[in-house]
Amino acid sequence: MRDVAIVSAGMTQFGELWESSLRDLFVEAAVEALRGAKADHLDAIFVGNMSAGQFVGQEHLGPLLADQLGMVGVPAGRVESACASGGLALRTAFVEVASGMSDLVLAAGVEKMTDATDVTEVLATASDQETEAYHGITFPGLYAMIARAHMAAHGTTEEDLSWVSVKNHRHGALNPKAQFRSQVTLEEVMRSSMVAEPLRLLHCSPVSDGAAAVLLCPLDQAKRYTDRPVRIAASALATGSMALADRKDIAFLDAVERSAQRAFHQAGMGPTDVQVAEVHDCFAIAEICCVEALGLVERGKGNAAARTGYTALGGCIPVNTSGGLKAKGHPVGATGIAQAIEIFEQLRGEAGERQVKGARVGLAQNMGGSGASSVVHIFEGV
Amino acid sequence: MRDVAIVSAGMTQFGELWESSLRDLFVEAAVEALRGAKADHLDAIFVGNMSAGQFVGQEHLGPLLADQLGMVGVPAGRVESACASGGLALRTAFVEVASGMSDLVLAAGVEKMTDATDVTEVLATASDQETEAYHGITFPGLYAMIARAHMAAHGTTEEDLSWVSVKNHRHGALNPKAQFRSQVTLEEVMRSSMVAEPLRLLHCSPVSDGAAAVLLCPLDQAKRYTDRPVRIAASALATGSMALADRKDIAFLDAVERSAQRAFHQAGMGPTDVQVAEVHDCFAIAEICCVEALGLVERGKGNAAARTGYTALGGCIPVNTSGGLKAKGHPVGATGIAQAIEIFEQLRGEAGERQVKGARVGLAQNMGGSGASSVVHIFEGV
Repeated sequence: MRDVAIVSAGMTQFGELWESSLRDLFVEAAVEALRGAKADHLDAIFVGNMSAGQFVGQEHLGPLLADQLGMVGVPAGRVESACASGGLALRTAFVEVASGMSDLVLAAGVEKMTDATDVTEVLATASDQETEAYHGITFPGLYAMIARAHMAAHGTTEEDLSWVSVKNHRHGALNPKAQFRSQVTLEEVMRSSMVAEPLRLLHCSPVSDGAAAVLLCPLDQAKRYTDRPVRIAASALATGSMALADRKDIAFLDAVERSAQRAFHQAGMGPTDVQVAEVHDCFAIAEICCVEALGLVERGKGNAAARTGYTALGGCIPVNTSGGLKAKGHPVGATGIAQAIEIFEQLRGEAGERQVKGARVGLAQNMGGSGASSVVHIFEGV
Repeated sequence: MRDVAIVSAGMTQFGELWESSLRDLFVEAAVEALRGAKADHLDAIFVGNMSAGQFVGQEHLGPLLADQLGMVGVPAGRVESACASGGLALRTAFVEVASGMSDLVLAAGVEKMTDATDVTEVLATASDQETEAYHGITFPGLYAMIARAHMAAHGTTEEDLSWVSVKNHRHGALNPKAQFRSQVTLEEVMRSSMVAEPLRLLHCSPVSDGAAAVLLCPLDQAKRYTDRPVRIAASALATGSMALADRKDIAFLDAVERSAQRAFHQAGMGPTDVQVAEVHDCFAIAEICCVEALGLVERGKGNAAARTGYTALGGCIPVNTSGGLKAKGHPVGATGIAQAIEIFEQLRGEAGERQVKGARVGLAQNMGGSGASSVVHIFEGV
């Protein structure tokens, strides 16, 4: 397999973008990525999208988006793994380049959610329809059960959950592309409306529109496009039980652990090599579970990580410096690519006020559903 | 890139399968493929599916289907390119094995369509929502326009269209897995109900349920699983303009030509090397356009191919020996894999009454929408 690098990136503002369609968002992000590398062609395009069929009545995004980008003819396909669709698109593009099948490949993600009136119901189609969604539970409820299990097993408190939101809003306030650039206090989080006990409104990521794109090529061709390529040291996908009812311990996300172990093995690294990480905080409890499953903190100790500043900017291992899904926003198909972009910028020293000084190795972890799929990428500055 | 082979295949009956859910269908096909190779593990699963979100309220098929198959943990993802989703799944699995990322990979396709009440509307989300579907046109109308253009340009007649259906039903009658095993006469086709002038009911593929799966591994490991592997000599994807209005000549499917040229280049072969082909006859006119764009017959001469017996069993280049989408059925996400299975069986000499004697090289062409995406695979017996 060939070594693969990211050479440029493009991303729209995340937010409620009433004036932009799905295709507008994709084109904006893709053009920015192409311009950043002064690239005038592509060998392939892979786009991550969860549910454009349900959200905006549009399947078959591969040829549509290639066409809209002015790249009619280019091989283009869509991949989907619910909220991990962006991560899966990056993995697909990585394998495409690593294999030798293509040289210059765009990995993108896009979701247009605010046009739909039934967003929570559509998102619930990423859970097990027969044993979960059909019976009326949606993701806030599923993650609330995970939170309750974590509380029971590890003494996690509502305050622990709330510190995750406080930290991520603090980070997001420094990110010009974030949906929310407002800081929130612990009190504000703990007094926000209850959504699904113990999860409150400010423990939940928002409904968002947005797109993100990165350009990949073989590492040995990267200098044609940039002075500062970032190597993809690992790209790993794993799955777990779809339904919570089938899991031994719902407080632990074993698909995340599996994807992390594979990624660390591929990269020849371990959790202590990681200096900055983006993890899938669709709900505050998810960040707590993910940092544990990734091995960034000890199992059962994820609850203290935000509260103590361990995972804050300036802490031992800054997590979600972008603001995370909570503050940056969560246009589901775009999230996995946006995470990779945050790490790309960190490793290039371009993260501005969010910069983790001297970061050389970063990790991005993107998750589908209640954790039934997980994609981990490890990146290295070169 | 490593040479890649198919070592086994599994496929459900195609039809209106009221007693089986999407997950049942997938598991049946996947288990047959695993048993055929006596394989007890998988390194990855890629499943092609167009619209389970819209048809049965279920996205996130990767982990769900891995789980249902008893393979929790295995990397699994869904790919989508409308009716070419199966072809895209096969290409994704091919690249996965060719790259060295995985050794034993299941490429599958599944669609459960008969549970939905708005199938034609859902399928229309594979056209350009903004310039086509939104204005009320669906695929019979789009292909009717293609048929009219072909008639105007090349003198194609309703009788020419009808011979495609007569031929494919004759082939399908020999296929135990086909949805329709009844032959139809030219008169029956030409007297069937008008759907979208000039396309009649018997020019249209049906609404179907079904699943299909093939098992891939490096060619040099294939003998562990079978005595008769079939090599994938080429795997090529291409796109074209999404909307008919943006095409120079709607009677010619340039994405199909592009995918074929790429595939022949990869395989170091040409159209005359192909001894049996499955092509995407979602409507009778589509087969006529595809055999031209693939180079199997001269441009503008596709109309005569079925009528003269050129593409019939016993003819120069038998096309759609399985019965094609018309008679075998068209569970959209499964179709591309089912086409590959027909060629796999032909090249192993296992096609029974449909056997093309001495076939050594076969081609499968799978198409999305009104031809905006196309995937071509070339297979070789070894």
